[in-house]
Amino acid sequence: MKKIMNKVDDIVVESLAGLAAAHPCLVKLHPSVKAVLRADAPKDKVAVISGGGSGHEPLHGGYVGVGMLDAACPGEVFTSPTPDQMYEAAKAVSGDKGALFIVKNYTGDVMNFQMAADLLAAEGIPVAQVVVDDDVAVQDSLYTAGRRGVGGTVLIEKIVGAKAEAGGSLDEVKALCEKVNGQVRSMGMALTSCAVPAAGKPTFDLADDEMEIGIGIHGEPGRERMKLKPAKEIVEMMAKAIVDDLPFQAGDEVLAFVNGMGGTPQMELYLVFNDLANYLKEKGIVIGRSLVGNYITSLEMQGFSITLLKLDDELKALWDAPVETAGLRWGR
Amino acid sequence: MKKIMNKVDDIVVESLAGLAAAHPCLVKLHPSVKAVLRADAPKDKVAVISGGGSGHEPLHGGYVGVGMLDAACPGEVFTSPTPDQMYEAAKAVSGDKGALFIVKNYTGDVMNFQMAADLLAAEGIPVAQVVVDDDVAVQDSLYTAGRRGVGGTVLIEKIVGAKAEAGGSLDEVKALCEKVNGQVRSMGMALTSCAVPAAGKPTFDLADDEMEIGIGIHGEPGRERMKLKPAKEIVEMMAKAIVDDLPFQAGDEVLAFVNGMGGTPQMELYLVFNDLANYLKEKGIVIGRSLVGNYITSLEMQGFSITLLKLDDELKALWDAPVETAGLRWGR
Repeated sequence: MKKIMNKVDDIVVESLAGLAAAHPCLVKLHPSVKAVLRADAPKDKVAVISGGGSGHEPLHGGYVGVGMLDAACPGEVFTSPTPDQMYEAAKAVSGDKGALFIVKNYTGDVMNFQMAADLLAAEGIPVAQVVVDDDVAVQDSLYTAGRRGVGGTVLIEKIVGAKAEAGGSLDEVKALCEKVNGQVRSMGMALTSCAVPAAGKPTFDLADDEMEIGIGIHGEPGRERMKLKPAKEIVEMMAKAIVDDLPFQAGDEVLAFVNGMGGTPQMELYLVFNDLANYLKEKGIVIGRSLVGNYITSLEMQGFSITLLKLDDELKALWDAPVETAGLRWGR
Repeated sequence: MKKIMNKVDDIVVESLAGLAAAHPCLVKLHPSVKAVLRADAPKDKVAVISGGGSGHEPLHGGYVGVGMLDAACPGEVFTSPTPDQMYEAAKAVSGDKGALFIVKNYTGDVMNFQMAADLLAAEGIPVAQVVVDDDVAVQDSLYTAGRRGVGGTVLIEKIVGAKAEAGGSLDEVKALCEKVNGQVRSMGMALTSCAVPAAGKPTFDLADDEMEIGIGIHGEPGRERMKLKPAKEIVEMMAKAIVDDLPFQAGDEVLAFVNGMGGTPQMELYLVFNDLANYLKEKGIVIGRSLVGNYITSLEMQGFSITLLKLDDELKALWDAPVETAGLRWGR
């Protein structure tokens, strides 16, 4: 395991300092807790806040800015942030319209966001939470009761962020978040393991001719370990599981998102997108929007995930709305 | 070596098909040669065209669109495209104002772009070329007479593309390209090798405690192989070589670009940016703009490069101008 770092204990703090140094117009760091705050943090809107373990960058700190998140709370690598981080971050960016917590479904995240929400509610700050659970691979997992929150989170943060930016109320923003979570589905796979810096070794082993289908974003087990197959077969296996789950149907328009796990060349992600586009065309499912790249990662893991979101006019308009963050930007 | 692919011979073609399928509003494929063309290709401007071996994505196909490139010619992985690709791509996107070729300094690329330029000139199409050679690591290399063209290419394509979009003449666009190349400097490093799909094995070996400083974007040798050091020391070694070369001086304003080689977690790239920001601050060099991410890669190689561009008001305005490509977008 090789890492570009100084002291292993400082990797998250130094990386956050770099994010703030690179994007001073977009973000700033909270003065006392580990949290990335929107630089201009307008208080006349619902504050949209997320967080979770580090190691998934650009998620979540890279999505703080105009039209997406107002704050992100990073834990140590693959470790939940603490309730006080969430509480202080929410206090720093929330106004009268309150705060929405977007929570990936991992036990620690859910518990800690709940505690932070209770603290804020006790002070009279309106707060709502939505748990994202878009991963069709497994029902329960190493860190989860129920399905895991994965790639859909990126799309939810963008769309819900746009709704909040446009002046939506807390009830409206929460309802939209639940709606998007209800019609987004994902699944991942890996060719290689990630390696947590503090552990100093790969999280798991895969033979040179093997892959893991349905893997989680922490390298936790998925559905099945099998021999490496051609991309087309891998994509069909994953896309079928996703399409059958919602189910997506002929005539549906979708946002198709091929996400890299951190160590996969972009050339391969676009090759995957090609196979996915062919599969969806066969099924009569129309790609209305697309996203391809490293957006929710697992350190240096090689692999990818596929996410499909069923679109309608509301979601398309919110997806297309201007966004200006380190990890996603267009439109102003 | 594990790759997500179907047949190894089809990897470039399938990846290009995926790029076009994902971004139909931005790009289309040339009907007869391997080339990525701007979808709306306006003919009333200088056409800005680049190309080179595949495996460096998003460079160059990911930079075709509004405000950057009008066409990109991808070769096979780490292999120069052919003169007929460049000729046909230029014919497809050029109007009366002619075409500028932005050529990374590799022997095959330089030779083939020259042949294409000769063919176009013989037909009366105005054409100019600029060779990018920003890599301070080595004077000559495995594939190069003189310095290699690396990270600076991304910045040049953005800035020169903005000038062409604004209506600059071929002479003006060429002069700007030479100006930017004159004040941009880069250097790279690697922790691991890349693996060319057709070769089926890593290009080189590095021991578990070693790194290669000054490496090229094809995994070709750099300045020195040495024991892995803390990030701060690596950054200082590379930044010093870059700063001393131009030289950049106290009071200079720069665009600071930390580029991932394809397999490096973004967390580490921001950690590198933090060390770079601290180094530049000590030297009195001001970061006016920044870019952090995987923009010119070497397949799945782990490592990073640093690029510094000396800014002035002209370059800042062109950098900030709207751009809409798969790999870089902001501002409309």
